[in-house]
Amino acid sequence: MKIIVQKYGGTSVANISKIKKIASNIKSLKKDKLNLVIVVSAMAGETDKLLNLINSISKIPNGKEYDNIISTGERVSSSLLAMALMEININAITLGPEKINILTTNTHMKATIQSVDTKEIKKFLKKDYVVIIPGFQGINNNRDVTTLGRGGSDLSAVAIAGAINAEKCELLKDDVDGIYTTDPSLYKRAKKINYISYQEMLEMSSLGSKVLQSKAVELANKLDIKLNVRSTFNLEKKGTIVMNEKEIPTKEKKIVSGITHDLKQAKISIIGIKDTPGIASKIFKPIGEAGIVVDMIVQNISTQGETDLTFTVPKEDVNKTVKILKENKSKLTYSDLIKDEKIALISIVGAGMKIYTGVATRMFTALAKAKINITMISTSEIKISCVINKSACKKAIKGLHREFNLG
Amino acid sequence: MKIIVQKYGGTSVANISKIKKIASNIKSLKKDKLNLVIVVSAMAGETDKLLNLINSISKIPNGKEYDNIISTGERVSSSLLAMALMEININAITLGPEKINILTTNTHMKATIQSVDTKEIKKFLKKDYVVIIPGFQGINNNRDVTTLGRGGSDLSAVAIAGAINAEKCELLKDDVDGIYTTDPSLYKRAKKINYISYQEMLEMSSLGSKVLQSKAVELANKLDIKLNVRSTFNLEKKGTIVMNEKEIPTKEKKIVSGITHDLKQAKISIIGIKDTPGIASKIFKPIGEAGIVVDMIVQNISTQGETDLTFTVPKEDVNKTVKILKENKSKLTYSDLIKDEKIALISIVGAGMKIYTGVATRMFTALAKAKINITMISTSEIKISCVINKSACKKAIKGLHREFNLG
Repeated sequence: MKIIVQKYGGTSVANISKIKKIASNIKSLKKDKLNLVIVVSAMAGETDKLLNLINSISKIPNGKEYDNIISTGERVSSSLLAMALMEININAITLGPEKINILTTNTHMKATIQSVDTKEIKKFLKKDYVVIIPGFQGINNNRDVTTLGRGGSDLSAVAIAGAINAEKCELLKDDVDGIYTTDPSLYKRAKKINYISYQEMLEMSSLGSKVLQSKAVELANKLDIKLNVRSTFNLEKKGTIVMNEKEIPTKEKKIVSGITHDLKQAKISIIGIKDTPGIASKIFKPIGEAGIVVDMIVQNISTQGETDLTFTVPKEDVNKTVKILKENKSKLTYSDLIKDEKIALISIVGAGMKIYTGVATRMFTALAKAKINITMISTSEIKISCVINKSACKKAIKGLHREFNLG
Repeated sequence: MKIIVQKYGGTSVANISKIKKIASNIKSLKKDKLNLVIVVSAMAGETDKLLNLINSISKIPNGKEYDNIISTGERVSSSLLAMALMEININAITLGPEKINILTTNTHMKATIQSVDTKEIKKFLKKDYVVIIPGFQGINNNRDVTTLGRGGSDLSAVAIAGAINAEKCELLKDDVDGIYTTDPSLYKRAKKINYISYQEMLEMSSLGSKVLQSKAVELANKLDIKLNVRSTFNLEKKGTIVMNEKEIPTKEKKIVSGITHDLKQAKISIIGIKDTPGIASKIFKPIGEAGIVVDMIVQNISTQGETDLTFTVPKEDVNKTVKILKENKSKLTYSDLIKDEKIALISIVGAGMKIYTGVATRMFTALAKAKINITMISTSEIKISCVINKSACKKAIKGLHREFNLG
C-alpha cells in the first residue's frame, strides 16, 4: 500500500476558505488513487489565543491541564477539514491520538513520540477514506493528552510516516514554498534549494531558519524518511527535499548550501579575568543553573596571567546574565564587563565542508572584502559561524551568497 | 462520603476573572471539608464560535466530527478552572468523559447518558482533590466523543450526581439567581420561587423558561436528586430547590407556582374544512413529515359538515407549513387559511391544580378583567395555556401574577 503523509501548517488552515481549498486539492490527489494520511496544525492564531488564556491564570501551568487546553486547536481544524472533504464527496475521518495510540513520553508540553499504532489508519485507508490526524499531540501511559512542543505537528507527521512506512512525507506551508539559501526577506536573490541533507537542515533549523522543527528533522533522519517542504497552494512547485546526503544527486551537491543569520543573540565579554584552572567552570556554572543557554564561547590568549572571555546568550537573558556575573564578582575577580546586544550571528552551512578545504578562509575573505569586522568565530563539521555587527548583517549575507555561488 | 456536585454555566466562566472568582469561592467551600465535583460549560460565546465555523463548511455536518469540534470548549474551560484552583493551592484535576467513562447512546449531537464510572472521581476526592469534569459530553461504544444537545452540561451534572450518590446538585448561574414566578424582565414584581416540583419545572422549561434543560430535570426526577439553582457570584442567596413535590414544605406549596410565556409560536387557522373522519390526520401527516412540531390544536364545533381548525407551530416554520397546506389544498378542500404570527402563549403552572378546582376559571376571569381576548385554550394536569394577542402579554402576566398571589 503506497501511502503519502501530508502535513498542513497553521497558516494553511487559517480560515474556512483555505480549508475548503485544501479539501479540493486533496480531492484532485484522490483521482490518482493515492492513500492519504493528513496531519493538521491548529488554525493560525488559535494556539496563541489559548496560550494567552493560560498565561493570564498561571505563570507555571500544570502540564496535564496545559496540554488538555492547548491540544484542542488541532482537534477543531482536523474535524473541519474532514467535514470539508465530506462536503465534496470524499470519505474522510479524523483519528485522534487516543484512537491510534500515539504514545509519548510523560513530559507534558514537550513530549516525544514513542510509538504509533497504524491498525485503525490502515483500516480506513483500505476503505478509501482520507485519514486526518490532529498534529502536535499524543497520549502518555496514563492516557492523558500530551503535546510535543511548538512546531510539533511536523514531528507528528514524520512519526506517523515512519510508523506506516509512507512513500513520502510532505510538509505543506502557506508562507514559504521550500528551504531557501538564505532569508529572501533580507536578500532577494535567495534561491530555493532543491535538495538538502538532514544534517544541513538541522544546522539551518538550529540557527534560526524556522521552517522545520529540529526534532522532526532528527526523527526523519533516524527513520530515513524523505521530507518534501512545499507550498500548500502552489502545487506545481516542487519545493525542497530533505534527505540522506548520500542520495542527493551529485550535480545538486554544493560546498555551501545555505546562509543563516540569528539576530536574537547578545554578546558578553569579561575583561581581565585571572586565568586559573577552573575559572571557566566558575563563570558558567551559575549561568547554567539559572537556565540560560550559552551558545558560542571564545577565550583570548592569556597575557600576564589575565585573559578576556567572550560568549553569547539569548538577548532576553543578557541582563540576568550580567546580574549573575556581578553577584559573583568577588569570586571571579575580573576588571570589567562589556555587553553588546547589537550583534548578528551569521553562519554558512554545507555538507561539502567535510571534503573541501579552505571554506573558512573563503568566508573570512568575503567578509573582509565587504569591510565587515568579525568579533567571534565558531566552527563545527558542516557549519562556520561568525559574530559581526548587526548593521552589517545584510551586507554579509550578500557577500557570502556571491562567494559561494548560491544565486 | 458526602459529595456536592456543582455545575457552572457558560456565563459563569465567560472570562478569566470570573474563573478566578469561582476558584476562590470553591476554596472557601473546601474550608468546610466538602467533597466537590465541578461540572463546567464552555466559556460563553465559544460554542457559538465553533458552530459558526462548522456551519460555514457544512449544512448537515457529520455527527462524529461535529461533536469532536463542539466538545472542545468545555475541555478548555475545565482545565482553566483546574489551573486557577492550583494557583491558590487547591488540588484540582480534570477528568474527561473518556477517563470516567461517561457512556452515552450513539446519537451524535443529542446523545443521552447511560452510565458514569465513578471510580476515578472517588479516587481523587479521597486524595482531597477538587474533581472538574467538562460538561455537555460523553463517549459512545466506539469511544468517540458525543455531545448532549444544547444546555447538556445540566444533564452531565445530574447524571454524575446520580452516579456518585451526591448530597445535592447545585446549578450555578451568573444571569439568574433562581427560578422566578415569571420573567422578571417582563414583570418586575416577579418573585423568586423557593421550592418547585420536578413536574412544575418541566412544564416551565418546556414553555420557554430557559433556566434548566428539560432532560436534566427529567433525569433528576427519575433519580430523585435535589437540584439547587442559585447565583454563582451571590452565594448568600439560597436560590430555588427543584425537588419531589411530596417533600416540599406545605407552607411553600402554592396552587400556581409560576407563569410562563412563549412568543416564538405562530397560529394557523384552516377555515371551512370538510369535517370527515381522518381529516386531522390528513392535515398533520405532511406537516409532521416535514419535521415541524405542532403544539396546540383546537377544532371548532362542526356546522353543516364544515369546521375550522386552528393550531400553533414555531414561528420559523409558519411559512413552510402554509406552503404544505396549499400544496395539499385539493385533498383537504378548505375555504381559507389564516396565519397569525403576533401571538403569545401564556401558561400558568402549578401542582396545586391537581387538587384545587376552579383554577382555570380564575385564569379566564383574570384575563377577561384585563380585557384580554383568549383565542385558544389547552390544559394538562398541572398547566393551563392560553393563546392571546402578543401585545397583551405583559398585561396578562401582571393580571395572573396578582390573581394567584405570586408577588
